[in-house]
Amino acid sequence: MKFCGDCGAPVELRVPAGDDRARYTCRACGRIHYQNPKLVVGCLAEYGERVLLCRRAIEPRLGLWTLPAGFMENGETVEEAAIRETAEEANARVEIVSLFSVVSLPHISQVYMLFRARLLDEDFGPGHETMDTRLFTEQEVPWQDLAFPSISHTLIRYFEDRPTGEFGLHSATIRHRGHRAGQ
Amino acid sequence: MKFCGDCGAPVELRVPAGDDRARYTCRACGRIHYQNPKLVVGCLAEYGERVLLCRRAIEPRLGLWTLPAGFMENGETVEEAAIRETAEEANARVEIVSLFSVVSLPHISQVYMLFRARLLDEDFGPGHETMDTRLFTEQEVPWQDLAFPSISHTLIRYFEDRPTGEFGLHSATIRHRGHRAGQ
Repeated sequence: MKFCGDCGAPVELRVPAGDDRARYTCRACGRIHYQNPKLVVGCLAEYGERVLLCRRAIEPRLGLWTLPAGFMENGETVEEAAIRETAEEANARVEIVSLFSVVSLPHISQVYMLFRARLLDEDFGPGHETMDTRLFTEQEVPWQDLAFPSISHTLIRYFEDRPTGEFGLHSATIRHRGHRAGQ
Repeated sequence: MKFCGDCGAPVELRVPAGDDRARYTCRACGRIHYQNPKLVVGCLAEYGERVLLCRRAIEPRLGLWTLPAGFMENGETVEEAAIRETAEEANARVEIVSLFSVVSLPHISQVYMLFRARLLDEDFGPGHETMDTRLFTEQEVPWQDLAFPSISHTLIRYFEDRPTGEFGLHSATIRHRGHRAGQ
């Protein structure tokens, strides 16, 4: 950020009075422009023994597989965001079951919230940002070709919980690609 | 937003190609400025039979009681944010137990994530934005003087779960002050 969105004057990084970290602050009007983490919300949609994955048609990780998920928009709830993303990426209709994983990625200031959901029918297919959509059993999941560590983490925990029929809420922190902590 | 933070030229609301909603877009450099919900993160800190509340020294809701919570910052995890907010608002040290409530407030594009936590000692007291900090039993909670419906919702669910010793994860949507849906 170089300019103030309110008045167009240059901003500078400055610690505001009573604050403890530098913020982009307008030199002319004084407006402080806070920057905060973004929520990435989506679904782990079940259909019998199988789960729905999307093969990415866009960068980053073009060609790799992921759960339908994306940035939450203003004016919606987390559940509405998860349902919308699943519709946009996989043209799929789901019913939310419960929140299943919360993954913090502090190095990129993102928090993933992924919901377990029931896929309502087999009438799905790739959205604009997806080149393929498919249902996979645990054995069929393309484990070596998953797009993001937050997705691998969530699928691993899901297939661990599944035989017990009891699905916990799984929190984790991923500090960089490939490293994982939490439970 | 009136001006582009990257180049200082005026922005306009326009639906970008392939998108389905209007975004602030720079007329000069074309940069799209996405706006997304903010996460408010904090703790419901237990100390024996009692929970820690903070009396707000700032607007909005000056003089009313709340759980220690605030906007998550870039570069931290949700748990780190909850611990930091509890330290800032109540000078209190806590150990996170588990995520207890997730509340979407779509009319103000916020999502609350409140963690159950153990208060580690009684050495706490008001931070800069707090005029009082106190431990309350269920009967002592100032139910009529709570600052936000997300906080009331969380405390009600907490004292419902407490006798059972089993604390679920509670999701809810609050569409405007005073209205509540979810469980």
